[in-house]
Parts: sequence; structure tokens; C-alpha cells
Amino acid sequence: MRRILITNDDGVKAKGISALIEMMRPYGDITVVAPFEAQSGMSAALTIGKPLRLTELKSEEGLKIYACSGTPADCVKMAMNQIFNQKLPDLLVSGINHGSNASIASLYSGTLGAAAEGTVYGIPSLGLSLSTHDPKADFSAALHFGKIIIDKYLEIPTSPDIYLNINFPSIPKEDVKGIKFSHQGKGQWIKEFEERKDPYGFNYYWMTGEFYNQEPEDLLADHNLVSQNYISIVPHKIDTTDYTELKRLEKLWKF
Amino acid sequence: MRRILITNDDGVKAKGISALIEMMRPYGDITVVAPFEAQSGMSAALTIGKPLRLTELKSEEGLKIYACSGTPADCVKMAMNQIFNQKLPDLLVSGINHGSNASIASLYSGTLGAAAEGTVYGIPSLGLSLSTHDPKADFSAALHFGKIIIDKYLEIPTSPDIYLNINFPSIPKEDVKGIKFSHQGKGQWIKEFEERKDPYGFNYYWMTGEFYNQEPEDLLADHNLVSQNYISIVPHKIDTTDYTELKRLEKLWKF
Repeated sequence: MRRILITNDDGVKAKGISALIEMMRPYGDITVVAPFEAQSGMSAALTIGKPLRLTELKSEEGLKIYACSGTPADCVKMAMNQIFNQKLPDLLVSGINHGSNASIASLYSGTLGAAAEGTVYGIPSLGLSLSTHDPKADFSAALHFGKIIIDKYLEIPTSPDIYLNINFPSIPKEDVKGIKFSHQGKGQWIKEFEERKDPYGFNYYWMTGEFYNQEPEDLLADHNLVSQNYISIVPHKIDTTDYTELKRLEKLWKF
Repeated sequence: MRRILITNDDGVKAKGISALIEMMRPYGDITVVAPFEAQSGMSAALTIGKPLRLTELKSEEGLKIYACSGTPADCVKMAMNQIFNQKLPDLLVSGINHGSNASIASLYSGTLGAAAEGTVYGIPSLGLSLSTHDPKADFSAALHFGKIIIDKYLEIPTSPDIYLNINFPSIPKEDVKGIKFSHQGKGQWIKEFEERKDPYGFNYYWMTGEFYNQEPEDLLADHNLVSQNYISIVPHKIDTTDYTELKRLEKLWKF
């Protein structure tokens, strides 16, 4: 029986992870290790300097659910060390995230931090995200096309050195125009903080921000594909060395 | 006058950031925005869901120091939005980290998360790390060679889409064999947790771990260079798309 590890960054109680469990149950035995609480924007962060907790929430035939007090990447490490005992699961699926992880969001994403950690462990890993932050989002189109993608993934494996970042537009399945491979689009957040004063007169800052699309004309970039009602699939590398720049600098910089 | 942003992940009180301030003062006006407390292993994590604080600690001619309650990447965002007001500094230097950020540590590193954030903002960015966790580490060799590298960096700019990950061996400067460009080496942590019981009988877990070198024979990989007493410089990309795998999958996966 295929052994599948599921995690996310919105926490074990999020609607998106329940949708993902439903989607993945036909594919094998499911072990969920997900954060107790929301861990959005945690990237591949690890918890160092304070201890972690791991709590079993459910154990039934084909489905075990644990909550971990740490980050998404902690959840994967905890699963590998304390549950799977370093024996690899066959598949890691992270999500379904409430919110897009296309473009530069891939840098900050806890959903993808967990997928990256899976890849470091040698586990075929994917992150799935739906482009709305609505906690009551409708995941039906993501589930429909998610299964089509998983079937393909199991049929034709990807390179072991990458994880897939799959972003679904938040629209009815009839309106989805197709599934396309893509690359990480260029963008950044601007106007990132809202400044407030506390009751004692001191400033504090909420992270908010507006997404600034740095290449609206590149219609094949992942975030632009999702805006055009396509599902985008991007393979991301663990080795982020820029080999072209490495060769260029090696020639130019003499010490 | 050149405007330089300095941050780190060991916190504003760490010896490594004091060493870096000393190293960088001759190059321009320094603004430090660093975490109040240690934020090791925070990768490019952002603080979402709770507000941030920013406190001025020092303001003198050519040197301002602020502490921020968030992660290293938060510090860069806070600096850009609340201090530089989106006007780019000329240079961002993160570190000097107490501990190596070679090999897979680059994925988890808060030092490099801050450098990545600088690159997203279009600021030429570098992360510097010394391969010892000793809080009283001797940074004199790092300062000596760090200045040589900064001089070269200012003379011949790197691509704007990358940040440099520079790792110094923790040895006297006479023992340093040279400075070499390199690539992110393959490795992972194993045996990652120490399990303990709290006074109430419940388990908790400290992240510890052993580094497992997945390519000891690749003597040019960054972590192996540092072990051989070289300083390694790796250019890391913000766009982590695997374009080779993208083209391969586009041909193989038909929907």
C-alpha cells in the first residue's frame, strides 16, 4: 500500500487540508502531520531554541492525523524521525493552501517549505495552492484537477531533485482553461506595513502589502497563467546555485 | 555616501553583527535593522498574524541601529518600508552568522533569507557566515578576507537576480588556503530530534541533528571547500524554477 505524508501551513484544522485528505485517500495510507495553528509565510523555517510537541489526533484504518507545534518543515522532519523512522513515504503532498503560492510567494510559502523539506529527504513532493485566502473556499475544482495531476505524477515521475508548485485559480471547474507547465514569475510585495499606535502611544506594524507584478506581459509566468484561469505547475530546485553566474564570476573575479 | 543595510539572524547583540559593522563602516553610512533575539533557521519566513515592533537603539554619525521583533526577512522589509522608504540602499550585508550556511543550511538560513529578501528588492545582497556556532568566535580572518571580497564586489557587480552566500572556515587567517567560487553542496540533517519527557510525563522534542554529507567526494562543493580551509562563494538564485525539468515534463506530461 502506498504511504502518503500530508502537511500544510494553514494548520491541521484548515478546510484545505481536509480537502486534500479526501483527494488523496484513494491513493494509499495517509499520515497527516500538520501544524496546530496557522504557519503561513514560514518558508522553510525550522524551530531552533525551543522544543516541539507532537499530538496524535486521529488513528483509523488508512488515516492517522498528528498535530505538531512547529513549522511546516518541522512537521516533515518530525514525521520522518518520529513516525516514519527515516523510512521514506512514497509521496508528500502539502496543502491545499488557502492563497496563491505563485511568483515570489514561493519564496515565503510554508506549504512549499514543507515540499522542499520532503525533497531534501528524497520523497517525491508537491505543494498545492488555491488562489484565494477565503477560509471557506470551494476546493472542488482543485480536487478534480488535482487528481488528474496526481495520476500523471504517479505515472511519469519527476526528477528527484525538485518539488512541484501547483497553483489552482479559484473558479468553478468548468471555467478552468487547462493545466500548463510554467516558471516562477517575477513579482514582489510593496507598501508592506500598516503602522498603528498601541494604547500606550508606541508604534506597531501589521504586515499587509500589495502584490506588484513585475512582468505582466509574460503571459506564461505562473502568476499570470493563474490570472488567465489556467492551473500552473512549476518544478522548483533544491540546489539554488546560479551556475551561469558562477561561471561568469569565476572568470571576472580574480583574487 | 554609500548607504548600507546590515542585518543578521543571530540577533542585534551577537558578536558577528558587531564584527560586520566594524568591517563595513569604512564603506559608507550604516543602517542596522536586526532581530531583537536569535532567529536562526528562519529561512525567508515572514511574520503574519501578529504585529511587529521596531526600536531605535543607536543613532550617531554614519551608524543607526534598530532592533525589530520579527525574522531576518521582516527586518529587511521593515528597513525598506519604514526607514529607507522604498528607496534602495546600495548594499545589503547579512551576518556574520555564527555557524556555516553552506550546503543545505542555505535552505534554512535566516542570514540568507534576509539576503534573498534584499535581492527581491533589487538591492545587491550578500550573506556572510563563519563555520562555528561559538558565540565568542574569532572573526578576524572573516573580517580580513571579507574586506577583500567586498572590494571585488563593489568593483565588479554580480547579476541583480542573485545573492552571494559566503562561508568562512573558522581558522586563523594564515591558514586560509584561498577564496573559491562554488556551488551548493548536497547534504541533509539526520537523527534530528532528542526526545524528552516533561515533568508531567508528556513527550517533547529538541531539534538537534547530525549533518550527513551526501557528496564527500565532490571537493568543489561549498561545504567541502570550507572543510579544506577555503572560503567559498556561491551565487544563489531567486528564481528557483528548474528549467531543464520544466522542458522535460512539458514533453512527457500530456493532459
